[in-house]
Amino acid sequence: MNPAIASTAGSLIRALHARRKATSIDLGLGEPMLMPNVAYFERATAWVAEHGCRYSPNIGFEDLRTAIARHYDYPGLSGPGNVCITTGSQEAVYLAIKTLLDPAQDEVLLVEPAFPVYAKIAQVEGIALRRVVLEPSDGCALDADKILEALGPRTRMLILCSPCNPTGRVISKAGAKRIADALKARSGPPVYLLHDEIYRELVYTDDAGEFGKIYPYTIAVNSLSKSNSLTGLRLGWLFAPLEVMPQIVKMHGWSTSCASTFAQRIALDIFEAGDLTTNRAWYAKQCELAMAAARDNGLEYIEPEGAFYLCVRVGDSQTLGFVETLIDERDVIAIPADNFAASMSGWLRTSFVAKVDDVREGYRRIAEHARERAPLHR
Amino acid sequence: MNPAIASTAGSLIRALHARRKATSIDLGLGEPMLMPNVAYFERATAWVAEHGCRYSPNIGFEDLRTAIARHYDYPGLSGPGNVCITTGSQEAVYLAIKTLLDPAQDEVLLVEPAFPVYAKIAQVEGIALRRVVLEPSDGCALDADKILEALGPRTRMLILCSPCNPTGRVISKAGAKRIADALKARSGPPVYLLHDEIYRELVYTDDAGEFGKIYPYTIAVNSLSKSNSLTGLRLGWLFAPLEVMPQIVKMHGWSTSCASTFAQRIALDIFEAGDLTTNRAWYAKQCELAMAAARDNGLEYIEPEGAFYLCVRVGDSQTLGFVETLIDERDVIAIPADNFAASMSGWLRTSFVAKVDDVREGYRRIAEHARERAPLHR
Repeated sequence: MNPAIASTAGSLIRALHARRKATSIDLGLGEPMLMPNVAYFERATAWVAEHGCRYSPNIGFEDLRTAIARHYDYPGLSGPGNVCITTGSQEAVYLAIKTLLDPAQDEVLLVEPAFPVYAKIAQVEGIALRRVVLEPSDGCALDADKILEALGPRTRMLILCSPCNPTGRVISKAGAKRIADALKARSGPPVYLLHDEIYRELVYTDDAGEFGKIYPYTIAVNSLSKSNSLTGLRLGWLFAPLEVMPQIVKMHGWSTSCASTFAQRIALDIFEAGDLTTNRAWYAKQCELAMAAARDNGLEYIEPEGAFYLCVRVGDSQTLGFVETLIDERDVIAIPADNFAASMSGWLRTSFVAKVDDVREGYRRIAEHARERAPLHR
Repeated sequence: MNPAIASTAGSLIRALHARRKATSIDLGLGEPMLMPNVAYFERATAWVAEHGCRYSPNIGFEDLRTAIARHYDYPGLSGPGNVCITTGSQEAVYLAIKTLLDPAQDEVLLVEPAFPVYAKIAQVEGIALRRVVLEPSDGCALDADKILEALGPRTRMLILCSPCNPTGRVISKAGAKRIADALKARSGPPVYLLHDEIYRELVYTDDAGEFGKIYPYTIAVNSLSKSNSLTGLRLGWLFAPLEVMPQIVKMHGWSTSCASTFAQRIALDIFEAGDLTTNRAWYAKQCELAMAAARDNGLEYIEPEGAFYLCVRVGDSQTLGFVETLIDERDVIAIPADNFAASMSGWLRTSFVAKVDDVREGYRRIAEHARERAPLHR
């Protein structure tokens, strides 16, 4: 048995999700409830009837890679050779960390609160971790100076999720530029900026920094999962500079060979239609409703600028205990936010993808649970 | 950059495949030309219209895992908890090697000729390799005694592909039992037997050993790619003992999260219909035709008992040079078989999935090329 895998904890989010009952109010898993557009599946099926369902090149079909590169239009990353199609953004993140870092000498810097999988992949691959922990007291703002101060001499990758899972905070254009300029000015080998932009299509501010636009060593990862309600399609992609792509594609060949041909046809259709932000307005409205419901129930929260999460404060330092009793006693699933950063003790990550009435009732029960546990744990 | 990835060679098969022209006779890539049954795609699309396309559990949908476990009926591996659904058998092989071996002390034994990806994954993961090389002079028979003799004290995994890519040879029931008995009798920790059974549904003999039936530490990997002409669907699976499955599923979560929901619905439909061997008779006939064409052209070959490859001797020790000039001068794509084992110098792997006329013409050109190069290289 590989000891690095055995010693790394599994997914708490998935474990809590597995406790979901038919009656549960589910504010847990980060998964859209909107239905996908089935017309894409019908057209891809018609294509299979004509062409079969054969392998794509390891890197993915060129027409799709061209369409994705054109859509995002990142300078220096704008050709089909800058895009590798992956099995969801999960594989893209895995490939980037595994391929671009040397476990013998390189270090990765995480900006926390962060999706726990980055740290777990680094741990499994034997890559040293450095963390900068943002504080809920200042709304977990993605503070460029604080992030830059945390870089060490061995840091060769900075991972930043913006809009952020779990806080929904977005790095500003000025903040992104400050980071890009500082990294460009650094001497020595380049620092890759892994921009997890999986919530890029769900942004509720005009001031969202995009590293692909300003920093040549950006590795941008994304997928159709969140924008198009296609978590189960497993279609993602990774932007990378040309000089590192052959190594990434080689590793991709060993891990999964290539992404699904069927899913790539759907993605091509979606990019050709420019159909990536149709759901944004719906999520923006849900976000307003969720914040209102939290306020109505007296819950402190971090105001999201993107994604579909609301971090709410329950003030219970036994955050996991709070969540477990919340499931058992009130049939509400939420995620302990200290799973994303130690600074988030006493906070929950909630998804506002459920029906409005469920979201409202969910926050009511969370607030009630917090009040009842307060004498014990505040 | 990860030096283990940078120092491992990419896929020669894919590189040769990329030189395919519209006019080429393609005996290269191991990919069915038969069309898949599109009715499965239509039904899965109807299911998505009703249910959406959401994540499955990391391990895969339970109904599918139950159907697969029942279909193969491997004692001790017969429950849904013994099956993990993967992104093709490629991910299954990757997960097995990566998860079950400790790079600090374990060693893997390859039975060559072997698909090169096993060795490459081991190399990338820093796992020591041991090889037993079968000889074309005895038809690369999967000789149990020879394989067992090659086990070392640190060997913790034996990888065996039967039917074999590239030779099409199959391990006999007696041979499989001999290996299983010897491994059971070994003292110390168990040796996992990774049985790559991706060509299991394309067997042309009654005497095919199945390790899942007789050895409790079998890791069996398979997919719908070859049996159902669905290489582009990326739907595979891995059987494993219950005690190691949590670690495998954890690693699977980090590499790809879960397999495609759409692909899993297609797989469920196929298993419920028992539609896995519909194409076997067609391949058996192609195999006869390919052997006849090789004979007619005076080419020595290894008689396949399964899969869709025919290894033919061209007697040129510059095998890659032979293949490159074969592509350039005669527009035929084949794979140098010494890519699978040093013992196969002077042999080609050919796929007999093409149209009969193409297969015949392909062997005619190969034989002609061999004759013309003979004075130079024999």
